[in-house]
Amino acid sequence: MPKRILISNDDGINSEGIHKLHEILKKLGEVYVVAPDRDQSAVSHSLSLYRPLRLDKITDFVYSVDGTPTDCVNLAINGILRDKKPDLLVSGINKGENIGDDITYSGTVSAAMEGTLLGIPSIALSLVGRGDFNFDYALHHSELIAKYVLENKLPEDTLLNVNIPNLPGEQIKGIVITRQGKRLYDEPIVEKVDPRGKKYYWIGGDELGFLNIDSSDIVAVKQGYVSVTPIGLDLTKYDHIDKLRADLLRE
Amino acid sequence: MPKRILISNDDGINSEGIHKLHEILKKLGEVYVVAPDRDQSAVSHSLSLYRPLRLDKITDFVYSVDGTPTDCVNLAINGILRDKKPDLLVSGINKGENIGDDITYSGTVSAAMEGTLLGIPSIALSLVGRGDFNFDYALHHSELIAKYVLENKLPEDTLLNVNIPNLPGEQIKGIVITRQGKRLYDEPIVEKVDPRGKKYYWIGGDELGFLNIDSSDIVAVKQGYVSVTPIGLDLTKYDHIDKLRADLLRE
Repeated sequence: MPKRILISNDDGINSEGIHKLHEILKKLGEVYVVAPDRDQSAVSHSLSLYRPLRLDKITDFVYSVDGTPTDCVNLAINGILRDKKPDLLVSGINKGENIGDDITYSGTVSAAMEGTLLGIPSIALSLVGRGDFNFDYALHHSELIAKYVLENKLPEDTLLNVNIPNLPGEQIKGIVITRQGKRLYDEPIVEKVDPRGKKYYWIGGDELGFLNIDSSDIVAVKQGYVSVTPIGLDLTKYDHIDKLRADLLRE
Repeated sequence: MPKRILISNDDGINSEGIHKLHEILKKLGEVYVVAPDRDQSAVSHSLSLYRPLRLDKITDFVYSVDGTPTDCVNLAINGILRDKKPDLLVSGINKGENIGDDITYSGTVSAAMEGTLLGIPSIALSLVGRGDFNFDYALHHSELIAKYVLENKLPEDTLLNVNIPNLPGEQIKGIVITRQGKRLYDEPIVEKVDPRGKKYYWIGGDELGFLNIDSSDIVAVKQGYVSVTPIGLDLTKYDHIDKLRADLLRE
C-alpha cells in the first residue's frame, strides 16, 4: 500500500514552497494538496465556524479553499479524504521562520496542529530567511524528515516544527533537535494618518530578536543547522498546579 | 497606587460578558477596555500584520478595534497603555466554554496569551453553557481569581484559563485546579448547495464530547466546579527530545 500524504500551507496554493514540496514528496507516496486560495500568514489556528467554505478542485489531487490553513486541513481530513485517512500531513514550506513563541501566531504550524488534533502525524516546514528564498536546498531535509515520520509516526498530540536555514545545501551543518525559543517583545505601534485625516495603526514594528537560549530553535538556525522541535498540544503548565492548589483553594 | 487592569474579549465590545466584567473589576482598580468592534470567536491567536487597524475611543477608558482579540491586546499594551503598563489582563467573560485542546482555537484564550507574551499576568474567563447565560453568578469567582492574580502575579509564560459553570451561585461547588482535557474529534463536513447550484461546506458539525480525563477542565465543569487551568506558552514536548535525537541524528 502506498503511503498517503496531505500537504497544506499558509502562503497559499500558488506559493513556490508548496509546489516544490509537492514535487519532492511524490517520491514517498500519493500526495494530496489542500491549501488556501490566497496568502493566510499570521491567521494562527483560526477555524471558520460562522461562514461556509468554498472548495475548488484543481485536479483529483489538488484543491484550494477560501479559508484558513486550519480550515483546509479540517476540510481535507474530515471531507475530501474522509475515507482515505492520510499517513502524514506536511505544512509548508513556509517563506520565513516559525520559531520561538511566535509559533502561536503561525498558520503553518496551526495546519500541523489541526492535523495532530485529527490524529495525523504532522510536520510544519519553514525556510528561515527574508527574501531570495531558495527552496531547493531545503528539500533534501524536508524529504528526510517526512520519510522518518512516515516510518516512525509521532507520539499522540505531538508534531514536529522544522526550520531550515536558507543556505546552500553544503553550508547546512545538519539536523539538531531543539526547544522552542523566546522572542524579545517591545514593538511600538506605528501611528499613521489617512488622506481623510483619520488615524490608523500598524502593529508588529521593529524586531528586537530572540533570547539566546541554549538548544533553542533560533540559536540552531542562526548557527546553520536544521532545527527540529517536538511541539506538544497539551498546554497545561503542570509544575504550577500544586502552587495554585495551595494558594487558591485555601482562600 | 491603584492597580491598572486591561480587559478584552472575543465576543466584541458590546457583549454582555465584558460589560459585567468591567463593572465588577472596577472594585479592584483602574480598568481599561480594549475589545473588538464585533464578534471574533474562533479567530485564534491571529495578528493583523498585513492591514492597518482602526481604533475607536468611546471613553477615556474604553476603546474598540476593528481587529482580533490579539490585535486589541497588542494595540492596548504597546499603544494606548504604553506608558501605563497594566498589572493584569482579563479576557472575557466569554459566552461558551474554552476547554480541552479547543483552546488553541480560542480568541478568548489568545487574548490572554498575547498579554502573557507581552509580560502581563493574564486570565481567560469563560462561562460554560449554551444559552440562557447568567453572568451574575460567575462574577464572584471572576473577581476572586482576578484579585488573586493581582496580588500574587503568575510565573513567566503562564496564564490562567478559567471556566465557570453557568449555574446559580449556590450550586457552584467551588474552585478546582485542573489540566487541559481532550476533545473527541470526528466531525463530518456538512455539504450544502447554494441557490446557484454550487456546493459549499460547513466545518465543525456534531459534538462528540470529551475524553473523561481525571482532573481535567471538562470533568470539573461538568461536576459543577469552577475550573482553573494553568496554561504554559512553551509548547516544547521535552519528553520526546531524546528519542528524536537518537532516531533522527543517527540517520
